[in-house]
Amino acid sequence: MRCPDEPGLIFRITEVLFRHGLNIVRNDEFVEPTGPTFFMRTEVAGDFQAEALLSDLRAALPAAAEVRLGDPRPRNIVVMATKEHHCLSELLVRHAFDELGARIMAVISNHALLGPLTTQFGVPFHHVSHEGLSRAQHEAAVGAVLDHYQPEYVVLAKYMRILSPGFVAPYADRLINIHHSSLPAFVGANPYGQAFERGVKIIGATAHFVNNELDQGPIIAQSVIPVDHTHSAADMAQAGRDVEKIVLARSLRLVFNGRVFVHHNKTIIFE
Amino acid sequence: MRCPDEPGLIFRITEVLFRHGLNIVRNDEFVEPTGPTFFMRTEVAGDFQAEALLSDLRAALPAAAEVRLGDPRPRNIVVMATKEHHCLSELLVRHAFDELGARIMAVISNHALLGPLTTQFGVPFHHVSHEGLSRAQHEAAVGAVLDHYQPEYVVLAKYMRILSPGFVAPYADRLINIHHSSLPAFVGANPYGQAFERGVKIIGATAHFVNNELDQGPIIAQSVIPVDHTHSAADMAQAGRDVEKIVLARSLRLVFNGRVFVHHNKTIIFE
Amino acid sequence: MRCPDEPGLIFRITEVLFRHGLNIVRNDEFVEPTGPTFFMRTEVAGDFQAEALLSDLRAALPAAAEVRLGDPRPRNIVVMATKEHHCLSELLVRHAFDELGARIMAVISNHALLGPLTTQFGVPFHHVSHEGLSRAQHEAAVGAVLDHYQPEYVVLAKYMRILSPGFVAPYADRLINIHHSSLPAFVGANPYGQAFERGVKIIGATAHFVNNELDQGPIIAQSVIPVDHTHSAADMAQAGRDVEKIVLARSLRLVFNGRVFVHHNKTIIFE
Amino acid sequence: MRCPDEPGLIFRITEVLFRHGLNIVRNDEFVEPTGPTFFMRTEVAGDFQAEALLSDLRAALPAAAEVRLGDPRPRNIVVMATKEHHCLSELLVRHAFDELGARIMAVISNHALLGPLTTQFGVPFHHVSHEGLSRAQHEAAVGAVLDHYQPEYVVLAKYMRILSPGFVAPYADRLINIHHSSLPAFVGANPYGQAFERGVKIIGATAHFVNNELDQGPIIAQSVIPVDHTHSAADMAQAGRDVEKIVLARSLRLVFNGRVFVHHNKTIIFE
Repeated sequence: MRCPDEPGLIFRITEVLFRHGLNIVRNDEFVEPTGPTFFMRTEVAGDFQAEALLSDLRAALPAAAEVRLGDPRPRNIVVMATKEHHCLSELLVRHAFDELGARIMAVISNHALLGPLTTQFGVPFHHVSHEGLSRAQHEAAVGAVLDHYQPEYVVLAKYMRILSPGFVAPYADRLINIHHSSLPAFVGANPYGQAFERGVKIIGATAHFVNNELDQGPIIAQSVIPVDHTHSAADMAQAGRDVEKIVLARSLRLVFNGRVFVHHNKTIIFE
Repeated sequence: MRCPDEPGLIFRITEVLFRHGLNIVRNDEFVEPTGPTFFMRTEVAGDFQAEALLSDLRAALPAAAEVRLGDPRPRNIVVMATKEHHCLSELLVRHAFDELGARIMAVISNHALLGPLTTQFGVPFHHVSHEGLSRAQHEAAVGAVLDHYQPEYVVLAKYMRILSPGFVAPYADRLINIHHSSLPAFVGANPYGQAFERGVKIIGATAHFVNNELDQGPIIAQSVIPVDHTHSAADMAQAGRDVEKIVLARSLRLVFNGRVFVHHNKTIIFE
Repeated sequence: MRCPDEPGLIFRITEVLFRHGLNIVRNDEFVEPTGPTFFMRTEVAGDFQAEALLSDLRAALPAAAEVRLGDPRPRNIVVMATKEHHCLSELLVRHAFDELGARIMAVISNHALLGPLTTQFGVPFHHVSHEGLSRAQHEAAVGAVLDHYQPEYVVLAKYMRILSPGFVAPYADRLINIHHSSLPAFVGANPYGQAFERGVKIIGATAHFVNNELDQGPIIAQSVIPVDHTHSAADMAQAGRDVEKIVLARSLRLVFNGRVFVHHNKTIIFE
Repeated sequence: MRCPDEPGLIFRITEVLFRHGLNIVRNDEFVEPTGPTFFMRTEVAGDFQAEALLSDLRAALPAAAEVRLGDPRPRNIVVMATKEHHCLSELLVRHAFDELGARIMAVISNHALLGPLTTQFGVPFHHVSHEGLSRAQHEAAVGAVLDHYQPEYVVLAKYMRILSPGFVAPYADRLINIHHSSLPAFVGANPYGQAFERGVKIIGATAHFVNNELDQGPIIAQSVIPVDHTHSAADMAQAGRDVEKIVLARSLRLVFNGRVFVHHNKTIIFE
């Protein structure tokens, strides 16, 4: 639930839950001070009638409130990748052992390289080459595949092409990207070459929703891994891959478990 | 608040808070599944009459419920140390700049070494030597100083003597220790020598309440620091000191902010 | 190279390398103070005649010296597992993309569960059930498979049976295990249940050579992951799996790159 | 030692050390591939005549070689601060217990606030206010104090004023700064406010030499600390302070132990 903050919200919500005979197993609330905006995520035990519960909760809350019921079924997702396998492998393995909290409906790539890995796990692979196509044409071709699957989430698992705002817009808060990073942040081509030149001591990764620009949007998870002068640019890239796959898997677990609220350009996460 | 779990607890609690005109700023609950036991910590904004609020909360909860009102005043504490300065320094500096959430009433040591550091910060120092005394005699002498100050918490900041159960008992859940550790854990004398011999790759620290044995009791915070074969036993001890002081300071911040519940031999911490 | 320490060792070694026209690209030495024992690992650029080089190096060093030439070919390994897939998956994926520094000749398991995963990656799978067999009989059956492959290293990727000293002995310094751990360390059955009961705040993993006992032997790599009271025993086990697979992969990279010396019950690692 | 790389360097260096009767206790070399440039740091045991040793080493190396003898005496340093105490406290405490590897000759601040803390530790404090002075005038006043002490290193322990290139130039590779950072990096005023708005999940710190711009220059050490949406901008600033003081102390230990080479805009560090 999310709504403008006011006194008595938790009381009114828990009164409804009590009236429906539900026991609260876990409860998380947060009031974002700038607003202020109230966020609450509740896990309950007991049987309930979904429409009646939602209706009673909405009646108990301000008109602007959003109320959403969690869905225990795995999310339906499509994964997009290019040539690097490390993030896709991590997702395919977790998927194969039911640890992802999602069903990978298909993998789309602008290269053919990761096709065998994908199909080996029994997941459909769509090679949508960008060669000879304009950006708009390529995005239309990718979009046609996505339209076919109607995924709830799209995961960019090292998809190395920039997506236009028009492509991104329909997937607001449902398109997740993993992005290497370092301190300082290097822009432009060959970021690991720049990181090597500068002698950075940590390499990081950021998983985030893509809302407008590819490498912007609300941050879900971040982590770093130490490096030193003995790391070549290639070694730094390998370190980056090791941390990227863990951060991406962790961010997906949070999102697919319904623990992430997007609020303006940030996330509220009830871990 | 802590009590046996049952349906409707949050509803009844928040009803009381609402009735007293209080707005919930932050709320944390947890149900320990083995029990089950209900824990809740609430931060409220607004004016209230303490006795009436407590009385109403107790009336709303099961008979066995514990209800405690947070106290915004700094905790009164006594720190005990031996010869190593690193934990005591960290506490004295944070204390000097009002960052500890506690008032250090005094420092007690079985050695004179840390006296100048302590008094330089304007804190009374009691040198209670153990020389020529039995354990019982020495503990009686330390106990007399503690009785004088009546501290809410006693912090063992690298106090290197074992305390008897009789000494510890009156400070149940109020006596905090910091303990080096490693994987595997080494018992007996010279743990860093043993860690060096075994070639461990991480050195850790554990802050915990002391309930019976010196190095046992509910864990509050833990962390580790990487080491390698180039670290001598002395280097490993230095690494241990660096992590110990941070873990101790962090555990005290949690305890003094009223974020830590002790439940059987573990802690529930609402960070 | 490894030998008792004495003055002039590096000088004599580098003289030989210079005489053979080799340029030192990277050099690591360490003198273990208890001994003292000299360790050196050198990467060179240039062409050389292996027998002549080894002979000249041995002549330049004390009689007791060990001199070993690195082998750029991937190590031949056999992986043993039981039912948990996380470590085996990590190795199979890295193997499939030539990132492991090793060739997985086969996987042996006392259960059939991980067969499909293994064969899907084109790696032979041997199900050697322990049912109805004594430990000696089962180890003989496993040993027969190992004898067939003659692997340079055997990796226990969550192989959950204890191995007898007689089985282990022929693989001294060539048998690698991954072991969950926590602070304090819990022995006996259900360690994550015990960790949960105690409320530990970090869960760790240790990769080590198996020399005598299953969970002892020289440590290669260790790491930890934070947990808290909201983690059930099952959640702690999941956190343990996440850190185990990374620590195991990292330890294998170090060993297969020839960066690890075993010395008594510890390791000297030139990263 | 540092010089253009060529075959035989280690051989020639260790020949000189052997001829002088010195035993190598620890040796680190690195060849920076872009160049290539050879770096070597050697710890020896034994008595030697400094001028003769340096002369022989220089004769054995290319003309452009730099050869420097380590100095076991503590470095003489001046620390500059503004109002935040956390880095200065850390240095003063380590200094008081001979753990800094340096002698703090004096502290200079543009505010009076940290005077009592400094003098309490017996260290001279110079309040050089910037009020009513131009940047050039203030830097001249600070420079006069520095000229009086002639420190080997100047440490900016949260000195919050920008230094002009003319001020910085004489302290090339001898002026060390600690700088908060985050991913992404925020420029301009109130970086923690921006980090809060963006919902970053880690806060970092970078210790670096100041060569031209205040927050640029070769990086010595970096670390991060996790944060989440419950951290206010003030909490993030506190987390930043906790990591800053540890990173600064660690970078100074490396520099004062002679373990850091500056090469172009990066560092080679032999830990």
